[in-house]
Amino acid sequence: MAKKQGFVKQITSRDDDFAKWYTDVCLKAELCDYSSVKGCMILRPTGTALWEKLREVIDTKLKASGHQNVTMPMFIPESLLLKEAEHVEGFAPEVAWVTHGGDKELEERLAIRPTSEVLFCEHFKKIIHSHRDLPVLYNQWVSVVRWEKNTRPFLRTTEFFWQEGHTAHATYEEAEKETLDMLNMYIYVCEEILAIPIVAGLKSEKEKFAGADKTYTNETLMYDGKALQIATSHNLGDHFGKAFEITYADKEGKEQNVFTASWGFTTRSIGGMIMVHSDDRGLVLPPRVAPTQVLIVPIAQHKEGVLDKAYELRDQLQTDMSVTVDASDKQPGWKFSEAEMKGYPIRLEIGPKDIEAGHVMAVRRDTLEKIELPLDENLNTALTELLNTIHNDMFATAKARQDEKTRVAHTEEEFFELIEEGGFVIAPWSGDPKVEEMIKEKSGATSRCWSFAHQNDDLTGVKDLWNGEDAKYMMHWAKAY
Amino acid sequence: MAKKQGFVKQITSRDDDFAKWYTDVCLKAELCDYSSVKGCMILRPTGTALWEKLREVIDTKLKASGHQNVTMPMFIPESLLLKEAEHVEGFAPEVAWVTHGGDKELEERLAIRPTSEVLFCEHFKKIIHSHRDLPVLYNQWVSVVRWEKNTRPFLRTTEFFWQEGHTAHATYEEAEKETLDMLNMYIYVCEEILAIPIVAGLKSEKEKFAGADKTYTNETLMYDGKALQIATSHNLGDHFGKAFEITYADKEGKEQNVFTASWGFTTRSIGGMIMVHSDDRGLVLPPRVAPTQVLIVPIAQHKEGVLDKAYELRDQLQTDMSVTVDASDKQPGWKFSEAEMKGYPIRLEIGPKDIEAGHVMAVRRDTLEKIELPLDENLNTALTELLNTIHNDMFATAKARQDEKTRVAHTEEEFFELIEEGGFVIAPWSGDPKVEEMIKEKSGATSRCWSFAHQNDDLTGVKDLWNGEDAKYMMHWAKAY
Repeated sequence: MAKKQGFVKQITSRDDDFAKWYTDVCLKAELCDYSSVKGCMILRPTGTALWEKLREVIDTKLKASGHQNVTMPMFIPESLLLKEAEHVEGFAPEVAWVTHGGDKELEERLAIRPTSEVLFCEHFKKIIHSHRDLPVLYNQWVSVVRWEKNTRPFLRTTEFFWQEGHTAHATYEEAEKETLDMLNMYIYVCEEILAIPIVAGLKSEKEKFAGADKTYTNETLMYDGKALQIATSHNLGDHFGKAFEITYADKEGKEQNVFTASWGFTTRSIGGMIMVHSDDRGLVLPPRVAPTQVLIVPIAQHKEGVLDKAYELRDQLQTDMSVTVDASDKQPGWKFSEAEMKGYPIRLEIGPKDIEAGHVMAVRRDTLEKIELPLDENLNTALTELLNTIHNDMFATAKARQDEKTRVAHTEEEFFELIEEGGFVIAPWSGDPKVEEMIKEKSGATSRCWSFAHQNDDLTGVKDLWNGEDAKYMMHWAKAY
Repeated sequence: MAKKQGFVKQITSRDDDFAKWYTDVCLKAELCDYSSVKGCMILRPTGTALWEKLREVIDTKLKASGHQNVTMPMFIPESLLLKEAEHVEGFAPEVAWVTHGGDKELEERLAIRPTSEVLFCEHFKKIIHSHRDLPVLYNQWVSVVRWEKNTRPFLRTTEFFWQEGHTAHATYEEAEKETLDMLNMYIYVCEEILAIPIVAGLKSEKEKFAGADKTYTNETLMYDGKALQIATSHNLGDHFGKAFEITYADKEGKEQNVFTASWGFTTRSIGGMIMVHSDDRGLVLPPRVAPTQVLIVPIAQHKEGVLDKAYELRDQLQTDMSVTVDASDKQPGWKFSEAEMKGYPIRLEIGPKDIEAGHVMAVRRDTLEKIELPLDENLNTALTELLNTIHNDMFATAKARQDEKTRVAHTEEEFFELIEEGGFVIAPWSGDPKVEEMIKEKSGATSRCWSFAHQNDDLTGVKDLWNGEDAKYMMHWAKAY
């Protein structure tokens, strides 16, 4: 199936070997590189710029909704990590331990944070006294470490980058509202910035975060039909509040328990973006996250006036979008291939004939369609509209594929057939965790979520496909990353 | 000496116990808090906001000068750290070591980066091949860990935050230019943003960075007369280039060595800012780094129209500055004291009488001066000018104190007398490291830098104060943090 189209850097076709295609794109589009520590990647300039853009979008949303950034240490003393029982059980097996400082062995070994609930809760206990101190709406931008056996750039790395929000509230209901507000904020980032369609819902008891009361998730399908959990938001109930004895005096002066929530968005989302949108020519960047939205490629740039015009065009455009001129001494054909590999949403080709004719050729990265546009003061508007069109079309393409690959199973047999074919399989389930275990063992699939869209389904008389009990959930299932 | 002025939160006077005063300000202005890991601090919302502002200023400067952000792993395999001999000798004693991942012992232990030269150099070797690939101008925003015995918030913490720039160049001269350009960028940040006057110059061989060819430094005096090294920039020569075998093909195709530089600016600068500007009422924030520049305090806010007017005023002002209204239910006197503790550059008091009279009372945090300003459309301009005046006055005050505490020693005896009195002591030195050791042992002082201002001094016939040899350097000396 691999077509040879004379690209500058050949990559594996995604239909031939999706895993190899994926790492080819990550490396050859220069998003990341391997480091000498297994499972840790180097984020190269474009990879870092993508994360910075996501950070900017999320940070702006968080600040506008009253959240404040703080910064906790990267270390957690072992005794502190042990305070919430379910939490430590979930995380201990994948913790990296610091045992020595210089040449001295530490009295107590330190975990490098796999997540920071316990650090925030210890701090909350110190700063929360009265109902006036609530809610506390904190967030931090850091990296965390989880010792993983099988790693893959962006999707699963030993060290990864994220924001982790940690909030404290007077009531369970307020914690629940925060949890859902943040889930919705993540849906906005996925759909409106990354052009990734989301199925949002509740995780099963088995799949929820270690220590949570409820975990909500944003799930999406990759090109190969496997699911990706792209962001999660947890209502932690009073689990951590009780374990850390965080209380406040209510308006009547009565001591009350605090309820907490936590929510995170990681560099994994960049892996999802690649697996949803990119193709056999390389990376395809959604316009609203692309560090460079328009790449200008001068044709016959040695000819008088061409480079000047290219820079003039850049100056005109960059008030409305991010623009770069490729003035390197490579041939245009090479520049085109490289532009396709690196995924710039729009490539603008401009040569002596274009300048004379007063137009410019815009090439969409997503469809490779060529569009001739007048070289005048309306070009900014035309390209701004084109960037929006590209975003909308990329989202629509991904949504259509996801919808097509989402099917309802009516029997156990059909369920396993559909799971083998890939995509989301929706099926009625009693909630019995033994069923989840059996399905995972038999097919490798896991319950992804009880989507909001199915939470009002009438399940009267509907049975669990596997154990015949009354169904409680129309659940999304899939093999997942 | 401690005056009792009825502050909300009494703090130690800086003339009574400077060290205690400093931690009082850090904690009571809510910049940071202690964590359960010794030597690691929690940056609270204001502390984090200060660092974010510095990050924004520096990042903008770096991107405008062609630098790109990347992200390296936090781990360095022990064998990699050992590659540059001087470098490892300097850092090994203070490295935190990860020895276990989950319940498995690692085959090779991993250092948590104390600095990342070796990680960048390993990557440079992979990406640099031709003169076309140079220069490489990289930077990253991360935290690093150095296992310190004596720690103090911001000034010396086990984990601290910084940007570390790492660049590769074709020639020594280009590396030198980069080193000095970045030093100058840091001077801009210190003087124009933090209002901290800088003495810039070259470090001695003994005091330079482990592995550097030359280290340039920005030094400044704290209120107590001790010096602080606030930022450094290193020309690493070909030391790392050779140790890591980073070469490139020049225009003639000949293989050449690469020269590198590195430079860093840390959260320590916030400690310097506190120790230069703050006073017995608490924090004094320089206006250009203050997260909130103007705090509006409504007087008799229960009276009709007062709070509305306060918010209206905020809306008018916030197009030009950052403004917050303190609408809490505390008494104005408490609000004033709290505003002084937290260091807002300008406090605006507005009550029914002010509204009726059409004016507002502005109180400068630096001088506590009260200024009546008309409540009209010119207020934005007046306050913008006042913020600039405050910046300039704060800088001038710090500069005058630094100049006053900078004296030239003419004899060995006078040198040690002046060192005991505090401040910078300038004295002629041969460059003999034995003299530095003797001075440190006898007085605790160290050579701070050979300042640029003294590099053209005519030292004909001038002798080293301690060993009588010909003087080569008019050196700044001081006790330092």
